[in-house]
Amino acid sequence: MSDTIPSCEACRPDAEKVDPAKLEKYLSQVPEWRLEERNGVQMISRDYKFKNFALALEFTNKVGAIAEEINHHPELVTEWGKVRVTWWSHTIKGLHELDFAMAKRCEAVFNA
Amino acid sequence: MSDTIPSCEACRPDAEKVDPAKLEKYLSQVPEWRLEERNGVQMISRDYKFKNFALALEFTNKVGAIAEEINHHPELVTEWGKVRVTWWSHTIKGLHELDFAMAKRCEAVFNA
Repeated sequence: MSDTIPSCEACRPDAEKVDPAKLEKYLSQVPEWRLEERNGVQMISRDYKFKNFALALEFTNKVGAIAEEINHHPELVTEWGKVRVTWWSHTIKGLHELDFAMAKRCEAVFNA
Repeated sequence: MSDTIPSCEACRPDAEKVDPAKLEKYLSQVPEWRLEERNGVQMISRDYKFKNFALALEFTNKVGAIAEEINHHPELVTEWGKVRVTWWSHTIKGLHELDFAMAKRCEAVFNA
């Protein structure tokens, strides 16, 4: 068995950005997530609310664990009672379908 | 023994903001930290760099632990290879001397 870290499909230089029609469809599947743009790069993000800092940090760690599993990493903003998760694909400077799959996994982790 | 969560001295409504003279002195003691302002609220922040996501998240957890200990919480932005720590005192909408003490503790954690 190889012990190489699996490469993330969304992080390949030839990975395809989600096209506008699919973007709309995918966004409708994660209604709590909003589309944003930073320096021309499209991203999706959601704020998750918690009762205290410890629960927020626990969620950050859970999302960190799925990120490590897939080797695709979000930005995680942890504060007292809140975690903002933002997904995008650095290499293609935009959104890959994996970003939406990861958003769905975040929903599953939060609702578990 | 009381099991009440200790209140953070910087989070009392009558806590004092650091005055401009002290601000300059305190900033010089944490030269890696920069002063910033969001919506009129002064904050201090530093980007810490790491070799991967796991090490970044580990640092986030270490800073989270000292935050819980003091019951004063920063904003922690965790990404692949980077953690941005930002301290300020929400209640007084600015910087308390405790924010600088916490910045120093972050330095100690990072350099340990």
